[in-house]
Amino acid sequence: MSETEEGRGGVNRVEAFSDGVIAIIITIMVLEMKAPEEHGLEHLWAMWPIFIAYVLSYAYVAIYWVNHHRLFAHAARISNALLWANIALLFTLSLVPFATAYLGEQHFSHDATLVYMCVMMLPSFAYVWLQSVIRRTGRQDAAAQDYHQHSLRKGMVASAIYASGIALTFVSPWAGLACAALVAILWFLPKGPIDALFGG
Amino acid sequence: MSETEEGRGGVNRVEAFSDGVIAIIITIMVLEMKAPEEHGLEHLWAMWPIFIAYVLSYAYVAIYWVNHHRLFAHAARISNALLWANIALLFTLSLVPFATAYLGEQHFSHDATLVYMCVMMLPSFAYVWLQSVIRRTGRQDAAAQDYHQHSLRKGMVASAIYASGIALTFVSPWAGLACAALVAILWFLPKGPIDALFGG
Amino acid sequence: MSETEEGRGGVNRVEAFSDGVIAIIITIMVLEMKAPEEHGLEHLWAMWPIFIAYVLSYAYVAIYWVNHHRLFAHAARISNALLWANIALLFTLSLVPFATAYLGEQHFSHDATLVYMCVMMLPSFAYVWLQSVIRRTGRQDAAAQDYHQHSLRKGMVASAIYASGIALTFVSPWAGLACAALVAILWFLPKGPIDALFGG
Amino acid sequence: MSETEEGRGGVNRVEAFSDGVIAIIITIMVLEMKAPEEHGLEHLWAMWPIFIAYVLSYAYVAIYWVNHHRLFAHAARISNALLWANIALLFTLSLVPFATAYLGEQHFSHDATLVYMCVMMLPSFAYVWLQSVIRRTGRQDAAAQDYHQHSLRKGMVASAIYASGIALTFVSPWAGLACAALVAILWFLPKGPIDALFGG
Repeated sequence: MSETEEGRGGVNRVEAFSDGVIAIIITIMVLEMKAPEEHGLEHLWAMWPIFIAYVLSYAYVAIYWVNHHRLFAHAARISNALLWANIALLFTLSLVPFATAYLGEQHFSHDATLVYMCVMMLPSFAYVWLQSVIRRTGRQDAAAQDYHQHSLRKGMVASAIYASGIALTFVSPWAGLACAALVAILWFLPKGPIDALFGG
Repeated sequence: MSETEEGRGGVNRVEAFSDGVIAIIITIMVLEMKAPEEHGLEHLWAMWPIFIAYVLSYAYVAIYWVNHHRLFAHAARISNALLWANIALLFTLSLVPFATAYLGEQHFSHDATLVYMCVMMLPSFAYVWLQSVIRRTGRQDAAAQDYHQHSLRKGMVASAIYASGIALTFVSPWAGLACAALVAILWFLPKGPIDALFGG
Repeated sequence: MSETEEGRGGVNRVEAFSDGVIAIIITIMVLEMKAPEEHGLEHLWAMWPIFIAYVLSYAYVAIYWVNHHRLFAHAARISNALLWANIALLFTLSLVPFATAYLGEQHFSHDATLVYMCVMMLPSFAYVWLQSVIRRTGRQDAAAQDYHQHSLRKGMVASAIYASGIALTFVSPWAGLACAALVAILWFLPKGPIDALFGG
Repeated sequence: MSETEEGRGGVNRVEAFSDGVIAIIITIMVLEMKAPEEHGLEHLWAMWPIFIAYVLSYAYVAIYWVNHHRLFAHAARISNALLWANIALLFTLSLVPFATAYLGEQHFSHDATLVYMCVMMLPSFAYVWLQSVIRRTGRQDAAAQDYHQHSLRKGMVASAIYASGIALTFVSPWAGLACAALVAILWFLPKGPIDALFGG
């Protein structure tokens, strides 16, 4: 067993480790929502920005997990590049709870929304790297090629909307976050609509 | 391997991710119990509401894990709907530590108990969605049908008791929580008693 | 697949969930060790009671993990009783970080040491329950019987030392903790010495 | 199934538990980065030492995970020594979040950097122990021997640089941390350069 080829057994362990890290990232965000000690429901309602930020970040991390899950179904072996691209993806995702807490505590100020939008974009760079590695070293059958083509299209549309969102944040934080939410909804949709755009 | 059919391998990874998230949810609640810095056991005894809230929430999350475990034994493949219903279930469960901390810190006030009872009901909606997806896309053998029928009955009885508990919370928080505890005990019981009610 | 028999596949998922919970319990204890903000190494040295409490608790949880790991190798199927005994074990283990933080913050006072020693004994009751379930429903081959017999012997010796430790805590917290440490060392030893006592 | 021989099934569960603990260690460090409540990006920029400490520690823990992953590919069975060496490695890694928080909060003072550098060296001792156990009890094929030889060489070079880093910390914390970063980069590199040094 060489350092760069371990087959599906190695892939499974990388998946399991990634699942562990993503499970923790998605769950520790809830620790940032501190239950108010003061009596009265109005103190609970006052937490709505923190709650909205939590919902949006939860959706994003969940989408990355679903995409990671599907992408790894096409991985064939573990290379050095795959390991480090995956670790880079997990690193960028680990910044999401921090950016979420910042967004909530700053009550969706211009600055905090911009920081949040930019941090939320970092995993997409790592993801593109990871996908290119798996495209190169992974399965080469028709289903895999179909998957990668479809995924790249969806990624391009999502990035375009997201980039507009970052620009719109300078006008209004809510317009920026609406774009981010739109991207999340886009990922929740099944395969059809975007491929239709491309005649696929 | 298409986007919507991955067989039992895909099911296993969804199970593993869910296990990770539920394991973290059930464990981080203990972080809300801050050890008192003052000397004297009376400061420890004063924490009993926080401890009771922890025990009840731990039992609920454990029950969801056991039910999730049994339900997924009947899943045959991963569809888009299953992924998102599962992620919705994990999201609603992730609110439990927050509601638990709120209940403990508000010392079982009317408001906090109502919030807690309502938050604890959210996972049941996601669970009904998840179960309907698995009933539709999962195994169709006699054991699966028997399982789903039994599980729906138990769910109906549990929901009726739980809804009474929410109503009773307006009278007394303790009456409401007693209903919640009764539901927990109901789930701990083996298969027999409820089916007997239905002549099953 | 009935509700009470799922074979080794079910056992594996219970193991995986238990591993997740134990991994979190053993790791979150380190979160209780807050890095001092004041300059100077003397503030770091002042944390030694918290560190000692962490080391002892880490060893205990690790020992429970090792024993759980070995015990489950003899499980054959998942029954209701096994699920709840296992969840009870995880619950009692989840109290360890709390008791550890209390011990460290109270600087090993009589009261805190007594609380700690008692909390650390709770998992042993759940473990005895779990082992009796697996002994009854698990594998019945010679290796399993040998394992259970050996394990019960070790458990009896450990409990006797530990109970003496609780009694000694009334005299001196350090004498009590020394007994707890002795029990930990006993578990770290290989199979031989205790069986020799019993002529095994 | 004796206490000391469980084959690859036992190895897999030890791997899974280790993955869980390492996943939590690598992720909880981000909890130490508290989002500033004050408005203005300058309060965010002021967090750069904490962020740098996080990046370096994340890289170290990730490297240990990758090495652990590769090392365990050569394990054949679980012995007592392997279990405890592995638990010792996880223990030393669990101190990394504490040392990281200390480094960040002390703003890279001489003392804190020295503490950090020393704590970061502890896992290497446990790793050497673990590797010697696996070398003795694990697979004995040519690939395994090649792996162990290569890994020991890399470890020797890394330790030499790291030890220089500890010495340099007395001159300047930044020189010490630069050595630690150099070691991290060394591990990120593929197999070639160091073996070339040894004519391998």
